[in-house]
Amino acid sequence: MPSYAAPVKDMQFLLHEVLKISEADIPGYVDLDASFTGAVLDEAAKVAEDILTPLNAPGDREGCRLENGVVRTPEGFKAAFDTLREGGWMALDAPEEFGGQGLPYLMHTAVNETFVSANMAFNMYQGLTHGAVSAILAHGTDDQKARWLPKMVSCEWTGTMNLTEPHCGTDLGMMRTKADPQADGSYKITGQKIFISAGDHDLAENIVHLVLAKAPGGGEGTKGISLFIVPKVMVNEDGSLGARNAVSVGKIEEKMGIHANATCVMNYDGATGWLLGDLHKGMRAMFTMMNEARLGVGLQGYAVAEAAYQNALAYAKDRLQGRAVTGAENPNGPADPLIVHPDIRRNLMEQKSFVEGARAFTFWGATLIDRHMRNHDAAADGLIGLLTPVIKGFQTDKGFDMAVQAQQVFGGHGYIEEWGMSQFARDARIAMIYEGANGVQALDLVGRKLASDGGKHVMAFFDLVKAEIKAHEGDARMKGLVEPLKVASKQLQAAGMYFMGQMKTPNAALAGSNDFMHMMGHVCLGLMWVRMAAAAYAALDVGATDRAFYEAKIATGRFYMARQLPACGMHLARIETGAETVMALAADAF
Amino acid sequence: MPSYAAPVKDMQFLLHEVLKISEADIPGYVDLDASFTGAVLDEAAKVAEDILTPLNAPGDREGCRLENGVVRTPEGFKAAFDTLREGGWMALDAPEEFGGQGLPYLMHTAVNETFVSANMAFNMYQGLTHGAVSAILAHGTDDQKARWLPKMVSCEWTGTMNLTEPHCGTDLGMMRTKADPQADGSYKITGQKIFISAGDHDLAENIVHLVLAKAPGGGEGTKGISLFIVPKVMVNEDGSLGARNAVSVGKIEEKMGIHANATCVMNYDGATGWLLGDLHKGMRAMFTMMNEARLGVGLQGYAVAEAAYQNALAYAKDRLQGRAVTGAENPNGPADPLIVHPDIRRNLMEQKSFVEGARAFTFWGATLIDRHMRNHDAAADGLIGLLTPVIKGFQTDKGFDMAVQAQQVFGGHGYIEEWGMSQFARDARIAMIYEGANGVQALDLVGRKLASDGGKHVMAFFDLVKAEIKAHEGDARMKGLVEPLKVASKQLQAAGMYFMGQMKTPNAALAGSNDFMHMMGHVCLGLMWVRMAAAAYAALDVGATDRAFYEAKIATGRFYMARQLPACGMHLARIETGAETVMALAADAF
Repeated sequence: MPSYAAPVKDMQFLLHEVLKISEADIPGYVDLDASFTGAVLDEAAKVAEDILTPLNAPGDREGCRLENGVVRTPEGFKAAFDTLREGGWMALDAPEEFGGQGLPYLMHTAVNETFVSANMAFNMYQGLTHGAVSAILAHGTDDQKARWLPKMVSCEWTGTMNLTEPHCGTDLGMMRTKADPQADGSYKITGQKIFISAGDHDLAENIVHLVLAKAPGGGEGTKGISLFIVPKVMVNEDGSLGARNAVSVGKIEEKMGIHANATCVMNYDGATGWLLGDLHKGMRAMFTMMNEARLGVGLQGYAVAEAAYQNALAYAKDRLQGRAVTGAENPNGPADPLIVHPDIRRNLMEQKSFVEGARAFTFWGATLIDRHMRNHDAAADGLIGLLTPVIKGFQTDKGFDMAVQAQQVFGGHGYIEEWGMSQFARDARIAMIYEGANGVQALDLVGRKLASDGGKHVMAFFDLVKAEIKAHEGDARMKGLVEPLKVASKQLQAAGMYFMGQMKTPNAALAGSNDFMHMMGHVCLGLMWVRMAAAAYAALDVGATDRAFYEAKIATGRFYMARQLPACGMHLARIETGAETVMALAADAF
Repeated sequence: MPSYAAPVKDMQFLLHEVLKISEADIPGYVDLDASFTGAVLDEAAKVAEDILTPLNAPGDREGCRLENGVVRTPEGFKAAFDTLREGGWMALDAPEEFGGQGLPYLMHTAVNETFVSANMAFNMYQGLTHGAVSAILAHGTDDQKARWLPKMVSCEWTGTMNLTEPHCGTDLGMMRTKADPQADGSYKITGQKIFISAGDHDLAENIVHLVLAKAPGGGEGTKGISLFIVPKVMVNEDGSLGARNAVSVGKIEEKMGIHANATCVMNYDGATGWLLGDLHKGMRAMFTMMNEARLGVGLQGYAVAEAAYQNALAYAKDRLQGRAVTGAENPNGPADPLIVHPDIRRNLMEQKSFVEGARAFTFWGATLIDRHMRNHDAAADGLIGLLTPVIKGFQTDKGFDMAVQAQQVFGGHGYIEEWGMSQFARDARIAMIYEGANGVQALDLVGRKLASDGGKHVMAFFDLVKAEIKAHEGDARMKGLVEPLKVASKQLQAAGMYFMGQMKTPNAALAGSNDFMHMMGHVCLGLMWVRMAAAAYAALDVGATDRAFYEAKIATGRFYMARQLPACGMHLARIETGAETVMALAADAF
């Protein structure tokens, strides 16, 4: 069975030495000193390691089942869910007025990483609720907030998001689910929704579905879509639970992974719902939560890779196979451990440098969300809007690749379910698909975000990279880090210029969108590695006692720069071939 | 349920217009004219499409089970196996004296592709037998051949390969299975073997296990290993079946994929076996079959990707979602098909150009094996030895990637088992691991094959690439194909030169071995695309009627060159950073 230890030390390094959060001018951050965040993360680590990790592999094997219309989660899930709820873990960043602890989103993000690494499928039950809470906070009336939020914040009731229908996922304009207005101001919701994560389960006494549907008079396409609150069980005026609403589970999907999270077909048969936010503005309401939701999925990408990496590393140190080409390193044993072999190292270093870089990128992204939410900082909002498709698309693509590479370290044992490495790969696979498939992320980045607000945000991003490079250019020790970033960011700019020169042939940009997203991901992780290496040197310069920790950061950063940033040149070369070879074949000539 | 149609036309193009096999000076090839190979492939297509494809998804769901010591294969497998056996499909390239049809290995390869695409797990039962037959043909005494081969060639009895033990896979020198010589010349085999594909089943009345074990007096490490024939059921002098041998199934492994093939733990408890080949020369005996076995796994890489691609393409043409950015292409429908979107195209073209390129590479590889086997051509043997790790390692890495990309086209539906795309990805994953994990392939390529025979074979390879480039340099139409190959092959040579310059630091080469293998894979597929495009132009020049077919070949080749060959520059840049950043961290600093 795989093991997991929360990387609290790495997180603390990021929070206090790289991001220096308690010095950041964001309301609430001043309280986040190292002893406070350390205490929170140590406690979260215990929950992740002792409660969630042991349920991960058994949950995958057992899966969920539908019994007489009710979804049963795997053994142990209910008890664990109760424990987390009682510990207040599900309400970290919710406002205190609704029973939350009012901590910044950043703290939720750090804690969330440990829970996702430990048990991604389990954590989705509360993860979806978190998203639904955000939606009601942003768009609900005071009455709606008072009615739904206290129980949802505590996860006594959980939440879901209902967007997809059998014939449409990305293209929601084709949606068929209808909302018929009733005399009392409510709506009757009728239609079928699919791929509803945590759509039903036995962990909470009620489930609050947020459902996109078409109400009359909204016109064609996405313009006619509104968002509705549709509870599984009706709630009486006094807050007690009433009758079942007309919503039911059609089936649980058999999936490649995240078996312990029930992915449901949901049938709404004239179910009672209430409008959330403005009529016919449902898509906009969904979009306001998108950065947060997509950052959460981008986090899944590297969090699962982190768990997979930890196990691959342990196996590589333990498994004896072959001899180092430079001479036996375990001469008294029958063979050397796998980790002596350069290609195993290359594999492990790719995992390590990705996971640590992605964590830094994600934490930084979380501070931008806090800066927007708590400081109403429009520039931060614009920047995180630009970075979100990269965090989601790049990190889930690479996170899956890294989980597959971790599996490879195990040889044949990696393919056997008993060892748990297959589960990491199977679970990680979904993050590339849901919350906007990665092709849609690339389209969002290149087709919308690059040019939004006249290109202001992408220019701000490049300024920020330039400033970082300039800050360290005088430091000879940083050369192996700064130079590759300089090259890669110039290549990224060249790709942007190429797109601008092809304004009249939009296919040229779209044919290169996936390459651009990956290129930008590498530049962002490169930027993070420059920051982390600089922080490590700073610590060494003032005589930090744990030198090995800081030296490992620098060495890992140098690896990422030397071995991963060269991908940018390849992506640029691909991009600059334009759309011609991509679009040359007529559809029926395939 | 996924569908599959055998790409007979593409195969015929390769055999007769690219490889021009009936003109090749190889015994047996003269009979392989287009009408003969077309007839064989058309019949194979029927078997693959009508018999094997319908069993693929159900076989994955049902899997194998162990009942009272006997492995039961999924429903329908026995009947299908009998049908294939009766049709002579399992004996295509075996010698006629043992009941085979004596066709070249190339024909086996082409037919095999269709069977693997249709049902990889099913096809492994005969695939392993094919390998065992080759071993007995190469190393058996006349008596052994007469005793075992006729029933194995017909697959009345099947075969297995037993190498791995719980504590050793790659490093077989640590093997513990023992062979004790008996007075009658037989051996008692005792030990446990794991990961035995097709280790037991109900498809045949006997199973002939080829088992590596240590007989006394052979010394330490791999030198002491010999190969033994160990039947499941003893065979009497008259060829009838006798008592059960002391070999039993410990368990069936639960795997990520190929559920319908029983991967067994095999226990040998003093089982009777007979030496195959020379005493203490078991490793060498295994190596003689390695090119063939690894080419077969490299074929699995692209064959599963082919099946996945066919389904992704059909879905991309059928599924309506969004509008083309250049204007509606299906204005009367609610949306355009997915295939109008440039990033979906990019994805599909990557699949298509890989699969067709890999098929050409594999078929060419099969002709080299025939040239060695039938013409005793040492140069062909040296060349296929060099190319084998590339065919195995590069094609299975990319084949898996492409199956994952095919799955991505389906969005959320790709993650649901019902659609079958998950199975392609899960099945394809194993090919990166077995028959020598891909890290071992890269090591074999860089650590052994590059320098073998004084570098003669890699020089022959470069000469061949140069000759191909030279042959088409005067043709302006070929510029977009020839130029990128020229650049890429120079980069590959530069990587080789870099390794040679680092002779004293072998880690530098090994740290770049994976990159080199992938780089060489791209150069090989680039070479194939130059050949295919040239053949397509030749057909167009003489007024071929099916212009669309040939034009599609050229367009697909141009895509591969423009969009995939730029990876070579990245690999070279990575390689040239050497081992330093890869090996910098001490094992305990990870």
